[in-house]
Amino acid sequence: MSHASSAALEQRHQTVRAALAARQLDAVVLTSLPNILYLTNFTGSSAIVVVTSQHFYFVTDFRYLTSMADARGTACECPEMELVKVEGSYDATLAGLLASLPVQSVGFEAAHLTVSRYEWLRKALPRGETSGPELVSTEGIVEAARIKKDAYEIETLREAAKRLSAVARELPTEIRAGRTERDVAMAIDTRLRVAGFARPAFDTIVASGPNAALPHARPGERKLVEGDLVVLDFGGVYDSYCVDLTRTVTVGRASTDARELYGAVLEAHDAAVASVRPGQSRFAIDAAARDALGRRDLAKAFGHGTGHGLGIEVHEDPKITRKRADGDAQDDDAVAAGMVFTIEPGAYLPGRGGVRIEDDVLVTESGVEVLTDVTTDLLEI
Amino acid sequence: MSHASSAALEQRHQTVRAALAARQLDAVVLTSLPNILYLTNFTGSSAIVVVTSQHFYFVTDFRYLTSMADARGTACECPEMELVKVEGSYDATLAGLLASLPVQSVGFEAAHLTVSRYEWLRKALPRGETSGPELVSTEGIVEAARIKKDAYEIETLREAAKRLSAVARELPTEIRAGRTERDVAMAIDTRLRVAGFARPAFDTIVASGPNAALPHARPGERKLVEGDLVVLDFGGVYDSYCVDLTRTVTVGRASTDARELYGAVLEAHDAAVASVRPGQSRFAIDAAARDALGRRDLAKAFGHGTGHGLGIEVHEDPKITRKRADGDAQDDDAVAAGMVFTIEPGAYLPGRGGVRIEDDVLVTESGVEVLTDVTTDLLEI
Repeated sequence: MSHASSAALEQRHQTVRAALAARQLDAVVLTSLPNILYLTNFTGSSAIVVVTSQHFYFVTDFRYLTSMADARGTACECPEMELVKVEGSYDATLAGLLASLPVQSVGFEAAHLTVSRYEWLRKALPRGETSGPELVSTEGIVEAARIKKDAYEIETLREAAKRLSAVARELPTEIRAGRTERDVAMAIDTRLRVAGFARPAFDTIVASGPNAALPHARPGERKLVEGDLVVLDFGGVYDSYCVDLTRTVTVGRASTDARELYGAVLEAHDAAVASVRPGQSRFAIDAAARDALGRRDLAKAFGHGTGHGLGIEVHEDPKITRKRADGDAQDDDAVAAGMVFTIEPGAYLPGRGGVRIEDDVLVTESGVEVLTDVTTDLLEI
Repeated sequence: MSHASSAALEQRHQTVRAALAARQLDAVVLTSLPNILYLTNFTGSSAIVVVTSQHFYFVTDFRYLTSMADARGTACECPEMELVKVEGSYDATLAGLLASLPVQSVGFEAAHLTVSRYEWLRKALPRGETSGPELVSTEGIVEAARIKKDAYEIETLREAAKRLSAVARELPTEIRAGRTERDVAMAIDTRLRVAGFARPAFDTIVASGPNAALPHARPGERKLVEGDLVVLDFGGVYDSYCVDLTRTVTVGRASTDARELYGAVLEAHDAAVASVRPGQSRFAIDAAARDALGRRDLAKAFGHGTGHGLGIEVHEDPKITRKRADGDAQDDDAVAAGMVFTIEPGAYLPGRGGVRIEDDVLVTESGVEVLTDVTTDLLEI
């Protein structure tokens, strides 16, 4: 297990401090575990971080104090971290910490704090205009940094994608008529573990025959039969980073219809990949795939977005989707060097079947690097 | 895959409607997926439910509409469900639905809605005292029903615990000197899948030697050596219900110290199990374990709670813990027939090792039924 270096963490802390200064906040409370991992290398299940201009407090309970203390003095130590041990509850400890600090304006992560925790915290803090901290809703302070991967993250995702591709190359040995979807999914999960992934990044999808028309089918007791299209969508978490890959294969020879459907989705996939470059709009990347399917009269068969960002979470920004009429406006829709996301167009024909082809790409200074590395030719197994 | 019957769902809907009436709410918006599963049998990843005195709206996107529609007419159909297709975003669809209903006072789940979604929704709804719905913070409307399992849930948990116990009985074939913690964890995960679990309920813990002193250690590259205590903590999700079991074994013969530590934890485990009966305080169950360890001078070696509820989530109410000074007061601390929870005392000696023994119990009308069924004798493998 490798970790971001102390220097990388230090750099990330600086982006948070710059955001504090820009928003005129004295502190920010971080409750999102992926955001906390990004700033500290912490991979446990419970912690709160408070960042001020001068201090970096890490609140956790007895279970994790030892492991955080153990990282001290190593190359991936979280810089300047002050450990605060939870006594009673996490939020009571947080309230006590905030009350003890000379801070007035305290940001919190509105997308990662529930209304009930917010209400509890607000009541627990001392009141009055000058006597205690005021909670201020913020969004995306850490996510704005996470959307562009740094050198360590790119190296980790590249390695993860390489390992995931190796698993994909083993698929032909697992596919055969008579095997159930569930058995194939189990076999993939075992191969993910053997390939070094800590766990699947999501529940593995093996959708065969008519089930392939359901983009989020669960593997069931259906047995593969000759002629099936089989959508295989799986991912893994490697050193805390998620990668995600889909291939669609046929059991035995593909029918003409299956081959045509596959060809149309592959065109959409290739068009979207080819459109990726720094400065390109994420909506334009989606449109590249969508327009290609539209030219084959398959626009309605493609009901989901073209891709999603990858990183500590399996669904991150940027979202490669249609521009929505009802909001979701962003100042800047352009993708930039360092962003990593999936390209995964599909076409689903209810009752008949479906195809999805998914790779993971990195936006580079000059264009695009496809991180997953396994053929997109139709495999007839 | 089995599901709760329509009659069971109907019963659950009635408890929600009774809570609406008691709180003088016209409707409640449910955003917690486990709560939604409990009321609908929906196992997908995105949905919102709105319950009024007369209607039951199920909001989901194209990916899941087919599977929900497919359940119609079956014995586990969700009664009286009206499907609402997401157009644009989930929350925009929800706002549109609420604005179209003759409702004034609309509860939401404060523990399951983020501040950012709440703020967005509040702004999106029509304003004014009489012109639109008002959002009201609620807590635990569905959880209050979920804490006591109905006949279907008990049957499912009993079967799941039986299957998990079978996996536990296979442990001796996986433990041997020279194997890494990680390899043992992978083997357990494979056995969970073969035993019929959809997935592990949490990341499997295999903590050996000094690592056994860390209650939430991650399986690593350490190789088991003769004389190790090894804590094995694993669980599975079976038909959407979670079970959880821990055994501690030794590699080869146990030392006198290891045997003593094991004996002390087993006494605590047995004392806690023996204390379970309807009407018993959850704090008293915790105290039964804690006092037993205290009598062996191990009070400080037991840093976590004695247990947690099991069900659709692996950590639910009731929490079998110490009573906290800083709040968390409940009107009623008594456990009742139908509650299912873990009993899992442990003792951890930093640098030396640790022991945890965990079973799953059901509170019955007359006392307790231990659902997991595998010996608690110390296994020297």
